[in-house]
Parts: sequence; structure tokens; C-alpha cells
Amino acid sequence: MSAIRALAERSAAAARVLAAVDTARKNAALAAIADAIVADRDAILAANAADVADAARDGARAALVDRLMLDTARIDAMADAVRAIATLPDPVGATEWSPARGDGLAVGRMRVPLGVIAMIYEARPNVTADAAALCLKSGNAAILRGGREAFRSNQAIAASIARALDASGLPRDAVALVPTTEREAMNELLALDDLIDVVVPRGGEALIRFVAETSRIPVIRHYKGVCHLFVEREADAAMALALVVDGKTSRPAVCNALETLLVDAPLAPTFLPKLAKALSARGVELRGCTRSLEHLPDAVAATDADWDTEYLDLVLSVRVVDGLDAALAHIARHGTRHTEVIVTANAAQAARFEREVDASLVAWNASSRFNDGGSLGLGAELGISTTKLHAYGPMGLEALTTRKFVLRGQGQVRHRM
Amino acid sequence: MSAIRALAERSAAAARVLAAVDTARKNAALAAIADAIVADRDAILAANAADVADAARDGARAALVDRLMLDTARIDAMADAVRAIATLPDPVGATEWSPARGDGLAVGRMRVPLGVIAMIYEARPNVTADAAALCLKSGNAAILRGGREAFRSNQAIAASIARALDASGLPRDAVALVPTTEREAMNELLALDDLIDVVVPRGGEALIRFVAETSRIPVIRHYKGVCHLFVEREADAAMALALVVDGKTSRPAVCNALETLLVDAPLAPTFLPKLAKALSARGVELRGCTRSLEHLPDAVAATDADWDTEYLDLVLSVRVVDGLDAALAHIARHGTRHTEVIVTANAAQAARFEREVDASLVAWNASSRFNDGGSLGLGAELGISTTKLHAYGPMGLEALTTRKFVLRGQGQVRHRM
Repeated sequence: MSAIRALAERSAAAARVLAAVDTARKNAALAAIADAIVADRDAILAANAADVADAARDGARAALVDRLMLDTARIDAMADAVRAIATLPDPVGATEWSPARGDGLAVGRMRVPLGVIAMIYEARPNVTADAAALCLKSGNAAILRGGREAFRSNQAIAASIARALDASGLPRDAVALVPTTEREAMNELLALDDLIDVVVPRGGEALIRFVAETSRIPVIRHYKGVCHLFVEREADAAMALALVVDGKTSRPAVCNALETLLVDAPLAPTFLPKLAKALSARGVELRGCTRSLEHLPDAVAATDADWDTEYLDLVLSVRVVDGLDAALAHIARHGTRHTEVIVTANAAQAARFEREVDASLVAWNASSRFNDGGSLGLGAELGISTTKLHAYGPMGLEALTTRKFVLRGQGQVRHRM
Repeated sequence: MSAIRALAERSAAAARVLAAVDTARKNAALAAIADAIVADRDAILAANAADVADAARDGARAALVDRLMLDTARIDAMADAVRAIATLPDPVGATEWSPARGDGLAVGRMRVPLGVIAMIYEARPNVTADAAALCLKSGNAAILRGGREAFRSNQAIAASIARALDASGLPRDAVALVPTTEREAMNELLALDDLIDVVVPRGGEALIRFVAETSRIPVIRHYKGVCHLFVEREADAAMALALVVDGKTSRPAVCNALETLLVDAPLAPTFLPKLAKALSARGVELRGCTRSLEHLPDAVAATDADWDTEYLDLVLSVRVVDGLDAALAHIARHGTRHTEVIVTANAAQAARFEREVDASLVAWNASSRFNDGGSLGLGAELGISTTKLHAYGPMGLEALTTRKFVLRGQGQVRHRM
């Protein structure tokens, strides 16, 4: 048996144990993990310094080095995130009973862990602790495969987690770090559909596409967020402007940032000049359709490719549309099922937008930036799904579980003979 | 563009329309479909007779011909099943609101259709009507690819459905039958992950494995049901016997039939002779482990392969185990996540079995044969899932939907600037 298969078999065995562990023991283990991370801070920082030095030597971009680098504050934040997960309600074991059947047979649905969750990610070492804690709290075993750049940092964090699991009497195999970053090992992992229940890739679009196309295991993922805001003709212009500024500029590099603005034609002559003023003051480049350029003298002409581009930067494409139906058609064609916003005072138009737009979050008069687990009340998230199956949107603890049917009878049979 | 891709694009466009159609119009369309099927009975029977004649000419097995063949009663039953789906509650549009946030932003989760569902199935023509009706009621467009043997029957049924959709003012593309049964067309269909949201294969294990391994689209499936019943030492022996008889003999060819009996060692000497008597009277062949053979003189010795075999026939494998832990270990190793039963008067042992067995249905003192949508209160089912993601167990209307987040605000932004 290969080393990767052996690892996954140990994970599957640990998952069977974890499924039956009660909430108090899981929370105690999470507290122990947080304590171990803080206690091992120097070792983690030393491992991380070696990773950072290698990345710098290899000419890594500054943004990657920033994602990779840990310091005391980031390590404390990592431990705090683990402690916060301990305070969340445990979804496992809750059973919802259906109305009683006439024959006394009770039918329920019990929330249970998924089993083994494989997480494939890139340079951020804090994902190691976050993913381990979310999986543990929801009763799942985690197989973690982080990026090459963060390998030593991840090993150090995983060592702290392993020590805490041992001390808590939970199986050490509940959290496994893949001991190599070779591509071959990942390919092998992604073929183990008899042992691993779900794969969650997190990182750039190239990584996610690779995982989605290679995996034999179900994948929950999102490729990118080309998020739109539609300023409907009955919008409050000041509100719309504030929502665009927040959506585009508060953190442009994240997936719930705005990329395209759709403006209802009657509002274009008055709204677009205000938009240009507000956004140019914040260094945003505008790329406009032909009709919008009439009111945006300094904007660049948008090309067809702009409508499908996730800029992740201070760039916004702008299109004038004729009413709600045209906005819906644009979003159906260019949206990525991530986050879509309508600004309007007309409740009927908003209701149609809410119902008809296919996206993990549809917002009326609110910023696209609210699409994350914390803002939506999930407490924490493993990632955001734009796959519609199983989980759609930020994935909290509940998305890491499923429901099985339970029957309690007194000997009921289907056919009397 | 290929014909298959063009078909799927029309389905995706129809899905966008269907997502916004209200319950009354969907129910009216379902009534029209049922009426059309009855009105077109002669045409459907003629098409089916041609299919049956070809199958007989090609030497098809009797079981296949039976699944394929329609008669007046079966056509009426098909129409009745469509009418029954019209009476079920519509899951689409229901929104569950979270507790209010301090800033007045309302967060809800709205149940929405999946979009486009592709159904791949074999010889039963009634699946064409069933799947179309379930998808339509849940607001999804259906792409149906039935078996070669039933091609003309399916075309006739699809023609009735199309006529009813036209008359109801719903898009005809809401239900599309793939106009060819060539393998190449199916391969092409299974690659359209930008247009189709989920694939549900239904049929033999070979078909399902082919679909699961070929598809780029998420697949919900079950391969087989190797279902166990564990007679724990505190079981009521008469109840256990009745549940084994029901599970094994009431309909042996279905996936929720029992295949393996696990008997707790202290009960073996008294229970197994009664079992042999009851099952031999019903023509069941027993295949026993070494320890069980001591009490089953007429049984065949089981081989290792028996523990993983879905007989779908009057054959039962029998194994003596030492208590609950040994039963759980056997099921973890050989179970197929379908249906698992414990018979016991000991509530603590039953609770452990319920919690620790990983299967779509876990039953305590009730027959495995209850694992279907009708028995569990779903009204109807598209199939049974042993994939743990999204749906686990029989898939009713709710399993054909997902939930998106909805936000309703008054201009809330994430970061005040």
C-alpha cells in the first residue's frame, strides 16, 4: 500500500472515532490545540522564517511572502480563531423527527459528520489551524495539503496540533498533514474516493481548476467572484454610491469585492459623473461600455473580456443596461454565482432580483462584502462554495456535516406475510 | 456548437424561467402532463410494443423485458405518480431568516432549484415521467437520457410531456430527452459542467460507475446496497426473525433488501436454527461463516467475497460476531452506506449503533425495506444517494434544491470610510 493510501486509511479510522466524540471533549481538544500553538510559538516562527527566507531567495512576489509570513500577532490570532471555533454550537447528533407515522415507526434525520475532508491550499499557514479546528469541531478527520512555500510552517503547526490531540486522548490521525508537496502525492490523494468524502481546494483559480479536473472525490469550490452591483432606476443614488465604494475599495483583492457595475439607463446621466468623482478620488480605474462612456469622459473603453474578469484590483467595469431584465441577462451570462447586489427602493423589483439571480448570496441594498461566514452568522468558514450541491455560499460547521435517516420501531415490517 | 451543447443551453435557459414560476402554474403543468400521458396511451403503447419486440428479438433477459414493458395499468400508474407529485409541498422560495443583526441587516437562506438536472437511466420508461415531474415541481430543467431499449417508449412519453408544457405556457425545453443513445453523446453531455448542475445515474452498477468516472459534473449516486441486520444479544428473537424475513424475501431484487445477517455470539445457538427453518421454507440459500455453520448444518460456507456481494436474490450471508463493536467493525468494512439495522431491546446499544454506523438509513427494530422516499415521508424520490454530500438517502423534492443566502439592508457597508 502506498504511503498516501495508508495515511488516508488512518484518517478514515480516526473519522469513525471522532464521529462519536462528545462536544465537551472536542472543545477541550480545541483549547489544547490553541494552547499548544501559543506554547510552540518560537518553533513555529523559526520554521516560518526558514520558509520565508526560501521564498525570498526564490524571488516570490511580495503578496505571497505577506500571505506566508507569521509573526507573534498572527500566531496569537491563529490560536484565538481555534478558541472561537470551540465556542460555536456543535451541529453533530441533532435529530429532527418527522410527524409520527400511523404504525408507530419514528422517522428522523440525524446530523452526522461527513467523514474525511481533504483540504488543498496554498501559502497561508493559518489555514492549517483553521481547517483542522473546523473539521475537528464538526467530527471530521482532516487531511491537509498546504503549499510548498509553507511546508515547514505547516509541519510546525501540525506538530503542535498532534501533541494537543495526544494530550486530549483523541486520535492523532484526526488531523494529518500530507508529508510531501510533490504533485504525484496530490494526484494519488485525489483518487482515493473510497476513503475521502470531500475535497475543498482553496487558493488561486489554477489550483482549484486542477483539483476539480483531477479529483475522483466530490469537490466543493469556487473559481472566482465576478460580483455585480445593479443600480436600478429607483435607487437612492447616495446609497448606491456608498455601496459601490465599499464593494470596490474596502478590500479589492478578495472574492466578494465588486468587479462590474450595472446602471439602469435612466439614472446613467446623473449617477455616472458622481461615480467617476468618488472612485477617481480613491484611485479606481473605470472601464466603460459605449453608453457609459458618454458620461464617463475619463474612463477606458471596456472590451468583451472585461465582463468576465475578476480584477482583484482597483478596476471596475461599468455597463448601462435597460432595466431589470437586461441586468438579469447580463448577470446570468457573466456572473460566477458568487455575490450579486441590487440597489433599489422598489420592493417588487428587488424581489424579482432575489428570486431570479442564481448566486450564493443575493443582496438588496447592502454591500457585496458581507458574503463571508462571519458576517452571515456562521461564526467561521472553511471557504465559500459556488458549487450549488451540498453547500452554496460560505461553509460553516453545518456544511461539514450531512444528515442520515434514523428509524426507531417496534419490529415494523414492510410487507406482512 | 454541437447538438448536445445546444440542447443543454436551451435547458439552462428554461431553468432560469422555471426558477421563477409559481407553484400553481407548476401544478397545472403536472396535471396537464398526467392528462396527456393518459390521452396518448395508444401511441405510447405502440412505441413500447416496438421496443419490446426489438428487445425480445435481441434476446434480452426476461427481467429486462419486464422492466421495459408498459400496459394500460402501468401507464395509468405513471400518470397517477405525476399527479401525486403535484400534491406535494413546493420547496422553492421558502426563506429561513436568521436572528436579526444589530445593524438591521436581515440575513436569510432561500430555497432555490439546482438548475439543470441530467438523469441517466436504463430500461424503465416510467422514469421518464417520474424524473420530469420531480424536476419540474422543484423548478429544475431536466435532461433525460434513457436506455437504448426504451428509446421509442421514452420518445412517446416525452412527446406527451412536451405537448402538455406547450399547453401550460411553460418552456418546452424544461424537459429534454437526449435524441440519441450513442455513447459519444452521453460523454459529451457529462462534460458540460458549465451548463448542467448535477447528474443522477440510476440503474446497474456498471452504468453508475461509468457515469461517476466520466462526469465532470457533480454526480449523486449509489452503487449498491449491501445491507446488514445485526441481531444483538438482547434482541427479541421473534422480532428479529420477522425483520430478516421481510428484509430478505419481501422483494429480494431491490437495493434495500438484506444481504448479510450478523448474529451476536450468545444468541447464535438458539437463533440460527430458527432462522434456517424460516428461510429454507421461503427458498433462501444461506452462506455462513465457520462459527455460524455449527448451527446451520445445511448452509454453504461463505467465502470472503460473500461479505461484499449484493445478491439481489434469495441468498443471505450469515456471520457470528462478538458483540456490538465487532458488528460495527464488520459494517464499517463491508457496508455500502445504504441501510443498516440493529435489533435489540437495549437502548444504549441501539444509540451507539445509530450514532456510529455511517449509512443513509440506520434502523432500530425496523425493516431495512423502509428505506425509500415513500416510506420516509418524502412523497416520491428521484433515487437514493449514498454519496454523503448534498443528499444522503432517498432524494425527494428538497434534495433537488439548494439554499442561497439573501441579504436585505438599508445601505449597510462593511467598512465605514
